[in-house]
Amino acid sequence: MAAEPADVSEDELRALDAHWRAANYLSVGQIYLLSNPLLTEPLRPEHVKPRLLGHWGTSPGLNLVHTHLNRVVRARARKALCVWGPGHGGPAVLANSWLEGTYSETYPDVGRDAAGMERLFRQFSFPGGVPSHVAPETPGSIHEGGELGYSLAHAYGAAFDNPELVVACVVGDGEAETGPLATSWHSTKFLDPVHDGAVLPILHLNGYKIANPAVLARLPESELDALLRGYGHEPLHVTGDNPREVHRAMARTMDLAFDRIAAIQRAAREEGRTERAAWPVIVLRTPKGWTGPAEVGGVPVEGTWRAHQVPLGQVREDPGHLRELERWLRSYRPEELFDTDGAPRGEVLACVPGGELRLGASPHANGGLLTRALPVPPLERYAVTVDKPGGTMHEPMRVLGAMLEQVMRDTAERRDFRVVGPDETASNRLQDLYRATGKAWQAGTLPVDEHLARDGRVMEILSEHVCQGWLEGYLLTGRHGVFSCYEAFIHIVDSMVNQHIKWLKISRSLSWRRPVPSLNYLLTSHVWRQDHNGFSHQDPGFPDHVLNKSPDVVRVYFPPDANTLLSVADHALRSRDYVNVIVAGKQPCFDWLTMDEARAHCARGAGIWEWAGTVEEGREPDVVLAAAGDVPTQETLAAAQLLREHLPGLGVRVVNVVDIARLQPREEHPHGMTEPEFDALFTRDKPVIFAYHGYPWLIHRLAYRRTSHPHLHVRGYKESGTTTTPFDMVVRNDLDRYRLVMDVIDRVPGLAVRAAGVRQTMEDTRTRHQAWIREHGTDLPEVADWTWTP
Amino acid sequence: MAAEPADVSEDELRALDAHWRAANYLSVGQIYLLSNPLLTEPLRPEHVKPRLLGHWGTSPGLNLVHTHLNRVVRARARKALCVWGPGHGGPAVLANSWLEGTYSETYPDVGRDAAGMERLFRQFSFPGGVPSHVAPETPGSIHEGGELGYSLAHAYGAAFDNPELVVACVVGDGEAETGPLATSWHSTKFLDPVHDGAVLPILHLNGYKIANPAVLARLPESELDALLRGYGHEPLHVTGDNPREVHRAMARTMDLAFDRIAAIQRAAREEGRTERAAWPVIVLRTPKGWTGPAEVGGVPVEGTWRAHQVPLGQVREDPGHLRELERWLRSYRPEELFDTDGAPRGEVLACVPGGELRLGASPHANGGLLTRALPVPPLERYAVTVDKPGGTMHEPMRVLGAMLEQVMRDTAERRDFRVVGPDETASNRLQDLYRATGKAWQAGTLPVDEHLARDGRVMEILSEHVCQGWLEGYLLTGRHGVFSCYEAFIHIVDSMVNQHIKWLKISRSLSWRRPVPSLNYLLTSHVWRQDHNGFSHQDPGFPDHVLNKSPDVVRVYFPPDANTLLSVADHALRSRDYVNVIVAGKQPCFDWLTMDEARAHCARGAGIWEWAGTVEEGREPDVVLAAAGDVPTQETLAAAQLLREHLPGLGVRVVNVVDIARLQPREEHPHGMTEPEFDALFTRDKPVIFAYHGYPWLIHRLAYRRTSHPHLHVRGYKESGTTTTPFDMVVRNDLDRYRLVMDVIDRVPGLAVRAAGVRQTMEDTRTRHQAWIREHGTDLPEVADWTWTP
Repeated sequence: MAAEPADVSEDELRALDAHWRAANYLSVGQIYLLSNPLLTEPLRPEHVKPRLLGHWGTSPGLNLVHTHLNRVVRARARKALCVWGPGHGGPAVLANSWLEGTYSETYPDVGRDAAGMERLFRQFSFPGGVPSHVAPETPGSIHEGGELGYSLAHAYGAAFDNPELVVACVVGDGEAETGPLATSWHSTKFLDPVHDGAVLPILHLNGYKIANPAVLARLPESELDALLRGYGHEPLHVTGDNPREVHRAMARTMDLAFDRIAAIQRAAREEGRTERAAWPVIVLRTPKGWTGPAEVGGVPVEGTWRAHQVPLGQVREDPGHLRELERWLRSYRPEELFDTDGAPRGEVLACVPGGELRLGASPHANGGLLTRALPVPPLERYAVTVDKPGGTMHEPMRVLGAMLEQVMRDTAERRDFRVVGPDETASNRLQDLYRATGKAWQAGTLPVDEHLARDGRVMEILSEHVCQGWLEGYLLTGRHGVFSCYEAFIHIVDSMVNQHIKWLKISRSLSWRRPVPSLNYLLTSHVWRQDHNGFSHQDPGFPDHVLNKSPDVVRVYFPPDANTLLSVADHALRSRDYVNVIVAGKQPCFDWLTMDEARAHCARGAGIWEWAGTVEEGREPDVVLAAAGDVPTQETLAAAQLLREHLPGLGVRVVNVVDIARLQPREEHPHGMTEPEFDALFTRDKPVIFAYHGYPWLIHRLAYRRTSHPHLHVRGYKESGTTTTPFDMVVRNDLDRYRLVMDVIDRVPGLAVRAAGVRQTMEDTRTRHQAWIREHGTDLPEVADWTWTP
Repeated sequence: MAAEPADVSEDELRALDAHWRAANYLSVGQIYLLSNPLLTEPLRPEHVKPRLLGHWGTSPGLNLVHTHLNRVVRARARKALCVWGPGHGGPAVLANSWLEGTYSETYPDVGRDAAGMERLFRQFSFPGGVPSHVAPETPGSIHEGGELGYSLAHAYGAAFDNPELVVACVVGDGEAETGPLATSWHSTKFLDPVHDGAVLPILHLNGYKIANPAVLARLPESELDALLRGYGHEPLHVTGDNPREVHRAMARTMDLAFDRIAAIQRAAREEGRTERAAWPVIVLRTPKGWTGPAEVGGVPVEGTWRAHQVPLGQVREDPGHLRELERWLRSYRPEELFDTDGAPRGEVLACVPGGELRLGASPHANGGLLTRALPVPPLERYAVTVDKPGGTMHEPMRVLGAMLEQVMRDTAERRDFRVVGPDETASNRLQDLYRATGKAWQAGTLPVDEHLARDGRVMEILSEHVCQGWLEGYLLTGRHGVFSCYEAFIHIVDSMVNQHIKWLKISRSLSWRRPVPSLNYLLTSHVWRQDHNGFSHQDPGFPDHVLNKSPDVVRVYFPPDANTLLSVADHALRSRDYVNVIVAGKQPCFDWLTMDEARAHCARGAGIWEWAGTVEEGREPDVVLAAAGDVPTQETLAAAQLLREHLPGLGVRVVNVVDIARLQPREEHPHGMTEPEFDALFTRDKPVIFAYHGYPWLIHRLAYRRTSHPHLHVRGYKESGTTTTPFDMVVRNDLDRYRLVMDVIDRVPGLAVRAAGVRQTMEDTRTRHQAWIREHGTDLPEVADWTWTP
């Protein structure tokens, strides 16, 4: 182990404090000031913003961390990134970015001078300006921090496969109470000290949340230490409210932490040590709203929850508040920090590293700069052979798994592709991946274990939150990945994907942010095949959720067979700045399209399957049978076949929809069909029986503006399920072939009478199904053995 | 501290083992057998189910825990409940329920005899039978366990305000990796040993998940102990694979744990001890699939992940598997366990307690049995006085807070009402509650703290998951509660509310399950007023999410002012078996309706505000302005006023919708309007400009079947936001009054030309807004100062 780090010199201490004071001054300035940024004249009400918005409480702590990260990064020329968990402390990160110069480089209209400072202040939380949180607009950021819980998982995601990088991560004591954060600490069991970088968590205990003490801040230190050791960390404490002492302790502790990290990496990389080491965590205890007003109106503010947002609320109205604000700002001695032009003085910048070592300038925080195209192999190698539609069956996810295996193999050196999943990769039939890589694992092993590897790039932890957080961090730093998940449980990350989509939406509008690889979901073990688990595992509503979000970002695909899944996945893996949701089965599924047909079909997103209907393309049918999803496609084709047998004169068109956004108007979604395109598929006035994978009303919500909408009848999952057979599931939800035929008979004019007998036959078959299944527990043989007959 | 517990006798050990073997036998039987339940004849393929579904791996561990809970509950006559985290191990809990007799009491057709055993076996995971997981159908259950993560929070919820109850909670090592579970351990800082019962977590480390080792099972014991101590627990270990030794250790450890619990409660209740004690946690390490096949096809199964579901998969087809299954079943020596009639022998039942002490018979698990009507005070006491619509403003949530304060006061003795929230109760303006109770808190305190109390019934932890889990556990055991949350972040519990709604849906179909109080959400700090936080805090999509679920359970309300909020809340608090989502603002909002009017309006769920329009009720208007939500209502009324000024001849009707499901057809939702009702409000053919609080397409998804749907034009949040002013938010999303007027002009036939000037005025005002806001950072004075003029 390295020697104890030396104390910093008095000069350095003074410079660190100057930097911190400058950052604090700039933070307060952003929250309050419209003008007079350098306080060159006495503060007057009109210098102050009419609406005071922002979060002061966490800012001095973030500033302290930034100052000391600057120092240690500069001293060691160590590449670093910081994830700011309390990202609502936007003023702090903006202040530091401006101080180090990256802000002005990114936004030249906000220069590092008095005019720029005034702009920096004015724009903050001001209409037309910048948001109050760390955001895509903030240089150096990959994490918004408004919704708490994901900072540490993001930090790990950034560190994976970046062996030279140290990712610092400030975890607020509020955020530390969230579930996702509480389990993210276990990422210590998944970080490879050889191939990955380091994560340095800085648990900032300022003691309070919005209105309450924080749990971790109120544990006896021994209990908190036990917790952190239990998570696999070595706690290093910095506590205080005297700036000078805290600077000294923080500098020393940062050195200690970086020394420990270097030692762990050296032991693993050079000495081949394989036992898991306890990574350092810094526990920083400083007052909330430190250096702000101690009291306001006779009640304590500094060091309490009352410092959370804006400590002095009536500055324009109350001369006392105005005086107090001026006193507060001047307490940082701005004249020592900035020259008369408003530029930071030399001492202030002494700790700041240069170039890309600056936290705001790290290319990892603008990951698209580092992205390389993923080597996706030719699909033909993995495509299944289709001599005729429905002649064979494959498990689509297994077919895709072979292709992903090759991607994994072809990135073995580059290490820029990972697959995450909550203990479901094999269950989801992607186990071919293990021929190319292992499952990341740094905890204990037993001889019976399979596929565990220190350097594995399949990541499995039974936490959808952590999977999502890791992957987001990995993607935002420019690498590629896939999240495979049981369909129902992807709702666990509803809120996280909201934030990621919001992030991408804003990022796309910033010219300096380079596109990053898309977030690709493979949702499988879906609603129709929960034979083992039943009702609790049935929820196809994730598309409904994401389709509320920005159409520039969101894509949802329902490939109906193996080759279409390959084509969709290929597209998704090559794409940038999207969230691609791919819903596909893992159970054996009929192969409908050749690889060429699949490509063409997926490129169109929706199309007529002429071979499945009874009318030539271009001729108007009597009815359109449409489907989206693998099981609905099968039921639709079976219904088409029944119609062909029982009602041979009927003109049936079969339409298959892969890209569900095609149904939306072009004005609503860039993939939306034009009106003529839509009408060409669905007709303007013929009944459309649409068999949809999920909740049926989603189709109405997408297609309600279409001319033929009044003729659209949708079947889908209507929350009727239990542990039962695959066919019983579709019967319970009226999505079965017999019901679809009945729907046709009920809706095609004139059929009700003419086809009454056929309808009765369908009804009888459904009744027979009920009796059979209760007796045998299996599906009707005619259903179980069904195959498509051309 | 109490003396060490004595060892159990040899006789008792034998009896415990008999019970455990019986439960294991019954678990295997459920997974495999259709008939021949007592193996009275050699096992033949036709005795075996055609589809083998279920989870064996966790079952022997659950059976062990149940056996030993039986013993300790019986020995001490201690009321207990158990939450089975690995609820996918349904066979185990069903087996125990059948053994103790509660199953047959609940379902008399499944008697405690050979015929009943055959039914028990056959029905499991069989179409028309019972689900494979612990479910509402399972006596003694309050927790499904299919989606992992919530067991411990549920257990705490059940324990709050049940001082005599011990809630055991089996936490699987898979579940322990989830975020919600990882932070639920911190519930130790919120459990009052005086007024609450005890939670006894049993962390079951069987080592594997579906396909991977479990993280906690692979930590060195010292690290795991540190973690659990860090969570506030005292770990007690039971490890082994020799049944006899494990029984001995488990019995002793259960005694120790119950002794520790009794000692902690005595110290707090009788000796007034206030320092937080370390509650016991049992760490149970036994093999996954223990006592099942050691190997299948030459690979290890017992003690590995391969035991997770069905260890022998080809029993009907493979005579070797059939023989192995028979050997496995006979290894439990069923003839020693059941008499020739199939009834459990005396020794098997020796450990089982009687009556309501049986885990399957606890009234707490059928909480409706214990529910008392909540004393909701007369609303008139809290109602705001409304002399004329829009003449005054109130913060609706603050008004409601006063009413909830009284409910809190009136339940001070009964202790059956709690309010949960993620550190937002005061931010959400419900702080009057603190005049009646404190915030539950058992961690350290400082003099500056406010409202913390050991016995507080406001629960605040910065984890929406834990809030939701606590509340679900509290409600399912028959008590009442409210969850107040920022609107955007309620998506964090999307997946949890899915499961709760599914639970209620099934419960409602079971005659023996008594209705429990509804889960009431107060969603506030909503999308239109995120002045401080901006884009990350804007998501009004929760109604979209829950409205996919069972309409028998889901209710969504948008009260437009303080009095309507009171009325809706009153209804919600009195209701049973619902999930009530109430979306309301916390910012000052115009008061529109008197209390009487509010009651009448809420009872109808949607109605014409004749005073706001220009046509009498019953007369057809030229246009309908509809609104749902407080901000949309304000913009709609402002638009109506603009129309009155600028287009005095126009017939305008104003409709307000509180209960959004009213828009759905009656066949789709029990609250849905009939066709004539809908047409009477919205007309059949006049333009309807609908200002909606959330994503606009939800309204289309609800109303697409309505006659007037083609004339419906909806404005709402379209994902355009940032940190800005309230009025700028509505402008950005085209929901502002000027845009609504333009919509009217664009859609009422003939107005386009006649009102072109008015339209231009509106457009100009919007342009003026843009300029003003960039200059001043505040809203246009005419908007900021606007009031309704009758």
